[in-house]
Amino acid sequence: MKRFIGVISLLVCCLLSSVHGGLVPKVIVPEGGLSPQTEACISCHSMYTPGIVHDWMTSRHSKTIPGEAMKKLPIEKRISAESLPQSLQGYAVGCYECHSLNPDTHKDNFRHMGYSINVIVTPNDCKTCHPIEATQFAGSKKSYAHKNLMGNPVYHALTSTITGMRRFGNNQLLAEKPSEATLHETCLGCHGTNVERRGTKNISTKLGNLEIPDLTNWPNQGVGRVNPDSSTGACTACHPRHGFSIEVARKPYTCSQCHLEPDVPAWNVYRESKHGNIYSSKYQEWQFDSVPWVIGKDFKAPTCATCHNSLIVSPGGDLIIERTHDFGSRLWVRLFGLIYSHPQPKSGDTTIINNRDGLPLPVTFAGDPASEYLIDKSEQERRLTAMSSICKNCHGSNWTSGHFAKLDSTIKETNAMTATATNVMVSAWDKGIEDKTNPFDESLEQMWASQWLFYGNSIRYASAMTGAPDYASFKNGWWYLNKNLQLMRNWMDFKKEVKEKD
Amino acid sequence: MKRFIGVISLLVCCLLSSVHGGLVPKVIVPEGGLSPQTEACISCHSMYTPGIVHDWMTSRHSKTIPGEAMKKLPIEKRISAESLPQSLQGYAVGCYECHSLNPDTHKDNFRHMGYSINVIVTPNDCKTCHPIEATQFAGSKKSYAHKNLMGNPVYHALTSTITGMRRFGNNQLLAEKPSEATLHETCLGCHGTNVERRGTKNISTKLGNLEIPDLTNWPNQGVGRVNPDSSTGACTACHPRHGFSIEVARKPYTCSQCHLEPDVPAWNVYRESKHGNIYSSKYQEWQFDSVPWVIGKDFKAPTCATCHNSLIVSPGGDLIIERTHDFGSRLWVRLFGLIYSHPQPKSGDTTIINNRDGLPLPVTFAGDPASEYLIDKSEQERRLTAMSSICKNCHGSNWTSGHFAKLDSTIKETNAMTATATNVMVSAWDKGIEDKTNPFDESLEQMWASQWLFYGNSIRYASAMTGAPDYASFKNGWWYLNKNLQLMRNWMDFKKEVKEKD
Amino acid sequence: MKRFIGVISLLVCCLLSSVHGGLVPKVIVPEGGLSPQTEACISCHSMYTPGIVHDWMTSRHSKTIPGEAMKKLPIEKRISAESLPQSLQGYAVGCYECHSLNPDTHKDNFRHMGYSINVIVTPNDCKTCHPIEATQFAGSKKSYAHKNLMGNPVYHALTSTITGMRRFGNNQLLAEKPSEATLHETCLGCHGTNVERRGTKNISTKLGNLEIPDLTNWPNQGVGRVNPDSSTGACTACHPRHGFSIEVARKPYTCSQCHLEPDVPAWNVYRESKHGNIYSSKYQEWQFDSVPWVIGKDFKAPTCATCHNSLIVSPGGDLIIERTHDFGSRLWVRLFGLIYSHPQPKSGDTTIINNRDGLPLPVTFAGDPASEYLIDKSEQERRLTAMSSICKNCHGSNWTSGHFAKLDSTIKETNAMTATATNVMVSAWDKGIEDKTNPFDESLEQMWASQWLFYGNSIRYASAMTGAPDYASFKNGWWYLNKNLQLMRNWMDFKKEVKEKD
Repeated sequence: MKRFIGVISLLVCCLLSSVHGGLVPKVIVPEGGLSPQTEACISCHSMYTPGIVHDWMTSRHSKTIPGEAMKKLPIEKRISAESLPQSLQGYAVGCYECHSLNPDTHKDNFRHMGYSINVIVTPNDCKTCHPIEATQFAGSKKSYAHKNLMGNPVYHALTSTITGMRRFGNNQLLAEKPSEATLHETCLGCHGTNVERRGTKNISTKLGNLEIPDLTNWPNQGVGRVNPDSSTGACTACHPRHGFSIEVARKPYTCSQCHLEPDVPAWNVYRESKHGNIYSSKYQEWQFDSVPWVIGKDFKAPTCATCHNSLIVSPGGDLIIERTHDFGSRLWVRLFGLIYSHPQPKSGDTTIINNRDGLPLPVTFAGDPASEYLIDKSEQERRLTAMSSICKNCHGSNWTSGHFAKLDSTIKETNAMTATATNVMVSAWDKGIEDKTNPFDESLEQMWASQWLFYGNSIRYASAMTGAPDYASFKNGWWYLNKNLQLMRNWMDFKKEVKEKD
Repeated sequence: MKRFIGVISLLVCCLLSSVHGGLVPKVIVPEGGLSPQTEACISCHSMYTPGIVHDWMTSRHSKTIPGEAMKKLPIEKRISAESLPQSLQGYAVGCYECHSLNPDTHKDNFRHMGYSINVIVTPNDCKTCHPIEATQFAGSKKSYAHKNLMGNPVYHALTSTITGMRRFGNNQLLAEKPSEATLHETCLGCHGTNVERRGTKNISTKLGNLEIPDLTNWPNQGVGRVNPDSSTGACTACHPRHGFSIEVARKPYTCSQCHLEPDVPAWNVYRESKHGNIYSSKYQEWQFDSVPWVIGKDFKAPTCATCHNSLIVSPGGDLIIERTHDFGSRLWVRLFGLIYSHPQPKSGDTTIINNRDGLPLPVTFAGDPASEYLIDKSEQERRLTAMSSICKNCHGSNWTSGHFAKLDSTIKETNAMTATATNVMVSAWDKGIEDKTNPFDESLEQMWASQWLFYGNSIRYASAMTGAPDYASFKNGWWYLNKNLQLMRNWMDFKKEVKEKD
Repeated sequence: MKRFIGVISLLVCCLLSSVHGGLVPKVIVPEGGLSPQTEACISCHSMYTPGIVHDWMTSRHSKTIPGEAMKKLPIEKRISAESLPQSLQGYAVGCYECHSLNPDTHKDNFRHMGYSINVIVTPNDCKTCHPIEATQFAGSKKSYAHKNLMGNPVYHALTSTITGMRRFGNNQLLAEKPSEATLHETCLGCHGTNVERRGTKNISTKLGNLEIPDLTNWPNQGVGRVNPDSSTGACTACHPRHGFSIEVARKPYTCSQCHLEPDVPAWNVYRESKHGNIYSSKYQEWQFDSVPWVIGKDFKAPTCATCHNSLIVSPGGDLIIERTHDFGSRLWVRLFGLIYSHPQPKSGDTTIINNRDGLPLPVTFAGDPASEYLIDKSEQERRLTAMSSICKNCHGSNWTSGHFAKLDSTIKETNAMTATATNVMVSAWDKGIEDKTNPFDESLEQMWASQWLFYGNSIRYASAMTGAPDYASFKNGWWYLNKNLQLMRNWMDFKKEVKEKD
């Protein structure tokens, strides 16, 4: 990979330069160069979608011959395949190498300028060179993000209630179902849409009319997207096209696209933490592109990727923690309250859970965990120890254990504060003040949901990344956790009063 | 412009250096140097306001001889005048070149150390070298930002109601008019104040007493500022003094000063979008200073300026879109709901609108657009096509059309959700629960205003820059759009109950 | 300090390299090198906590021989001691130099590998080389941040009420006291915990079992932390370990860890101000490490540190303002409303205040300041003049005075709006609608607290850093200030109605 040979001006560039007379793309390619098919792609697309081509030109893909990349030391490899198809070994990773894979499984495949092209490159295609990553991802909650939301009747009730339209008639608010478009750009923006081919359509382009697949719920890069080849996920959720950069994925802005306040304020808390402060002040001097990633040398404070998925070694070369693309696999507890915080589920598919309320929720309404679907104490211990092994490169044992003890206490207390809100709501149900059929569509119920979804979650994230005290205090924290209970209590009285009068 | 010759130490520096013995400013100036007047300015101001002088020293102005700049290729020009006054052609653009223009129109002009100086440099002055930009700007809604707010009785009622003081007496909240100071630093901080000369005042400085113009509502750089020369606007709103940098204006932090949550969360949405993520992760490697701005080469993801106003070319040199300083001119729809989202108005002066309610609002209370004042379908189509031509450098036709189809749906739905809130409020008015005289001063009315001003707007901005799903969901999005309706419905009951008891 | 001589590979590195065969830390140290004790520390800790060691390697400490640093020009000195202990003069500032100081006062001292080591380095230890900074800090409100919060019965009631648990029983919300863990990660995250040694504990490490001090409320770097040597404060609050960088402290991300919305939105306002915009757009080109800090040359727009504590000179070398580590000492007014904005207190210890209500608050409930504990008009004038001397390097007199006149008006108006909310609440108390015993635990009271703690504060911060108009308007600003009063007024009626019915 360090043996780049030269600068090859693509034939097409010469052709184009005679047309445009101006700047033409020069692709710096490694020995071996581009495949003829990719050269053909670029010959048109450098004119029609030059942004894509130039972005790819900055990528490692455009400079890497997979056959050469296979020869690296295991710890330095960015490719995890044991062997590669012959056709991919000798050329740089270009347009055709990715957009032509597994055409038979791709309902989004179409004939395009003489080639058979998939519109969407899916995790199952990336798996050709990156099988370990794809397999880890496939078992993760992220991979099931669409199904876990839309296939769970409780969460589905939540999404339908809050994204559906309301009309006002006969003094009542009348509910409608949410549209596909609205689901697409709210919940499924992150969870991923269901992208299917519904037919073919004609578009007019600078090259004339083209016939292309007509896709539903497109564009979308949600992490649990259901793809036209039946795979799930979108590697581009974190490695945006067409740079596919490890640097971008390691910087916290990527995670911040979905993990943000008020429901999952991981990014907001990080930014205001000590770690986030050091990152923001000094990241310009750090290395975000090296594999393995050397703690203390490449970076001085963790980003999200450091703790959650990167391969980390010490400056002396000792392995600290292996890379993983199952993003929950280092976590012992799930801070995200549904409706209570709980041990991580065993399977990425959480629709299989069946708790003692008979619901697919990891915890019952009263706070009882569905333990057989959740990791046990010893697995929790194992993961806590592994995560702590990262912390301990910069922090003493006392520091680390003190930190996590505080988190334990906070999980218990925020769960108890959710239980209090649940008790207030149940009391309102029992008195007929609100109706329990849909637990998300009336005012007290929505205050109850805020208690765990916004306030409980914020406090737990703040605790987990100690140092952003306002998310635990006045900014969606304890202030609101308590204020909300007072409001609920008063609101119960107000509604009761109106009800009795009727 | 590339032919800088040397480093000229200003005479004054020598003088000053003998006094201060320390660091003295070295101004790198192009052939031709500074005018004698500007040298005189600097001789004092490098001591008395060194920050300004040093900031200007980093500017392109300090290194540019307009006469030379005129010779560039049209596509590379940053100056749009066909011809320039003789006096400005041969010197770098310094203090005197800008602060001495059009003195007769400037009520803020005063005699200062033997020169006739304007305190404020206005768009009409910048127009000397930048007439196209100044003229485009003059027709834009930004240029009318003060008038459009303060000259419209409905919006004026809003500003007065929310920024005016309240006293508590006789169990009632008694309203007062807002002060100039508070209007200045709330609404008019962005919309621009009315800066007039009310007289002259004496100030004591290190140089002794000076007599200077006494200005109202100063300082302010609101984009629609009414200037003492009767022009409107402040180029410094986006090109801050005294660097006047195109780089700063192209970075999103500039726009973020005014276009931010909860009412116009353009910046907040951008930052959390895929585009914003790529910007934040990689902008250090991009070029923000080049003219023309080359898509794919100078930058890999758009900033606000890319889509809304910059001159963009392809790496091959093809024109993608012309520069504009009429910031609405590429837009087919106005996402900002007043009270409903609507087609862009034809004129930057929106006070001329007269809808079927007889009000200067682009849409009636019931949702009926004042179409004769708004651009028509074919103009909307033309603008959508032009904007899409930028998208298509990195995205396929399918992607682009899918994106904008989603936006269309969201505009319709959020408008409908505003209509529902309007219907609830009208019902409250009809029942005598609240009083319609001022539609902004009671609780239900304020919930109604939140529906369109905060929640509807947030969702539309999130849709327009797809990829910041939380602004469409839990963060001022659909969650609140629906929750707010429930609260309004309950609040109506509560207030009715109290009313009936009285 | 400019006379670095060479690169010394630590003996330990050779030893370690034979074990690890990989990357080993090379410490670039100045002439004189590291003390034998510090070399011993590093020999193990470069293996066990390599992150710390590598962070320190990037620090100025690792490259500075204090004896040499003493010889600098006074204006360039970063060390303020007149003389130093002999033992510290000749070696770089390493682990042992800091962690071994004043062992007799340190209850957190323990025997560690043959050395007597303090777990926590406190301001009293840093004072050895930095006595002026430590002394200034010791007199500041920051140093009393723990005591001022927890030792004041009113604020203590606030913290207890909002961070304590609530249970629901007999239709009532029953209050419990907050846990140490929750206080630790909410209020005391910034204000500082009380760190005491409660005994000794055994931990198992890679080196075998170690006996270490068992500390309460650890880890914490709150700025008013109470340390085991009885000192208060944590220099690491702003100069994070182990880089101890002046650059980090001068960048606004450091201040943003605690000074953020909704109660103290200094960072949020700054980021959206003109100054913040210029910072974000251009800071990569500025110098954050130079002493003295040259306005206009090292930076073009202020960060928090510029106005509040750094030593600033002009490009000509003139002193503009002296460095201070008493962070309130340049301020004439305390924007933070308790419950009204007021002149800065004379003493950093605000628990000594006794106002005419008999409470340790700087202002009475009705708005009457406890003037004898607050700085007087002439001291206020003196500080305003000093602060303005910074502004005037980039802004004219007219500009500067106009800016601060606006702030004056805003302080008066926001205080009046707090008074209105107070009057509404008192009226509710008088009518028996809520109970005044604890002024923070009922809904109307919490709305009242929001009035000054969130909305009044936000508006004042926005005014003080003019240019972030949304924090004065729709984002926790005047919109909410007025809306909140309407809600309070309605809520009073609703609660009264329920009460009368009972």
